[in-house]
Amino acid sequence: MTTTTLPMLETYPQPIALDRVQLAATIDIIDDCAEACTTCADACLSEPDVAALTKCVRTNLDCADVCATTTRVLSRNTGHDLTTSRAMLVACAAACAACAAECALHAEMHEHCAICAEACRSCEQACNDLLAAIDGDS
Amino acid sequence: MTTTTLPMLETYPQPIALDRVQLAATIDIIDDCAEACTTCADACLSEPDVAALTKCVRTNLDCADVCATTTRVLSRNTGHDLTTSRAMLVACAAACAACAAECALHAEMHEHCAICAEACRSCEQACNDLLAAIDGDS
Amino acid sequence: MTTTTLPMLETYPQPIALDRVQLAATIDIIDDCAEACTTCADACLSEPDVAALTKCVRTNLDCADVCATTTRVLSRNTGHDLTTSRAMLVACAAACAACAAECALHAEMHEHCAICAEACRSCEQACNDLLAAIDGDS
Amino acid sequence: MTTTTLPMLETYPQPIALDRVQLAATIDIIDDCAEACTTCADACLSEPDVAALTKCVRTNLDCADVCATTTRVLSRNTGHDLTTSRAMLVACAAACAACAAECALHAEMHEHCAICAEACRSCEQACNDLLAAIDGDS
Repeated sequence: MTTTTLPMLETYPQPIALDRVQLAATIDIIDDCAEACTTCADACLSEPDVAALTKCVRTNLDCADVCATTTRVLSRNTGHDLTTSRAMLVACAAACAACAAECALHAEMHEHCAICAEACRSCEQACNDLLAAIDGDS
Repeated sequence: MTTTTLPMLETYPQPIALDRVQLAATIDIIDDCAEACTTCADACLSEPDVAALTKCVRTNLDCADVCATTTRVLSRNTGHDLTTSRAMLVACAAACAACAAECALHAEMHEHCAICAEACRSCEQACNDLLAAIDGDS
Repeated sequence: MTTTTLPMLETYPQPIALDRVQLAATIDIIDDCAEACTTCADACLSEPDVAALTKCVRTNLDCADVCATTTRVLSRNTGHDLTTSRAMLVACAAACAACAAECALHAEMHEHCAICAEACRSCEQACNDLLAAIDGDS
Repeated sequence: MTTTTLPMLETYPQPIALDRVQLAATIDIIDDCAEACTTCADACLSEPDVAALTKCVRTNLDCADVCATTTRVLSRNTGHDLTTSRAMLVACAAACAACAAECALHAEMHEHCAICAEACRSCEQACNDLLAAIDGDS
């Protein structure tokens, strides 16, 4: 799928503090992670061993919500101030790390947990990379 | 970007009432529309003629929220009951139609409105196509 | 708790098509239902008989998402057009009816389902009342 | 308005790491702040001097999204792990501080900004108080 994230950011009529290509790629990765987590939570609910997956459902739900808000905040460039963006990237990396760790425990039993764990790890990395860019370390 | 939406839906451990390929494609289109609307609202806020774009900001915000909830509902297949899915697809098509119409008014002046109008029209169509599939018309 | 919903709506600087007192009360009821559904989903996940509650978790998650978007849409009065508001009120009433019905099945076993079912029924009623007001029937 | 937040938390069937009364009160305060921010963003869009309020709209939208996700995370107690809760409380306090500061600049001109600034400050305080409780400082 070709998203409109980058074409949209390229039309933003003012300067943007971050590199638009990296910003758009990060947003797409976070959006994809949110979708994976929502679907993984639901797939867990339909597994025969759901009782062993309740913490996985919960970390998936948290991660989906945190990711959704992070892309919202990152998609806004009006009234430039990176304080909230930074805090949400930190929270998003934390939620993704927690969800990746939990999903990894069930990855051998459940393919959705394996895919979701990978999506969470990619998202955690993308958040940390953007944090590094914000802090001028890259 | 290659999303994990379809790979995730393919791991869902129970039958799904809808075609998984169509369902995944619809979710991706709606997610993309949500992202376009969030970004368009923000780009409008940074235009010199923002005073002429306030209705556009509002319809963008509504459309982003409605799209976000629609993909959440569509991504869940546990406890199968299409009543809420149907109602959200109707609401999503309505929000996309309203946003496409408003963005179209500014499309010549603002490229972000042109791209967003197109994303909204694609999303409206995808919602109506899935509604037709639910109702057995396709 | 005294919310700021009505005081905020009273400061909106343009005319509002709906009665501000009814609108604010409806928003508060929907917000309360969203919170009840999020908490009920989580409480279900921690019950020993979670395997019997998976549909309840799902309807709770849907209802929480639909309610959250409905209050967002209703809270906006700029660029007046009730089409999306109407569609979301219909979807919200549908999600609440589905969630109330499912929670009611578990109300004797689980107090959280009993409270949540009541919150959903109140919310469904409030949505239908506001729809009637929009349509000029009240 | 009497919310069902505390009654719902009281039915949670397992131990909760935090005091349920403080947790419920915090959730209600954050929910109220989210609602104030959504409404303030919309009221700003309808002011004649909207061009001077675009940063205010943006901080309101961020704050509403961050608050919404924070209450979701705080409302979940299954699979106890306070890492994500901590990170979201930090992000929520940051978003509220930014929004309170921006709204305060317009508080004399616009009553909605005055009310919203107060809601944001209350929310920032409640988040910091809960963080202190988590860290055992209170």
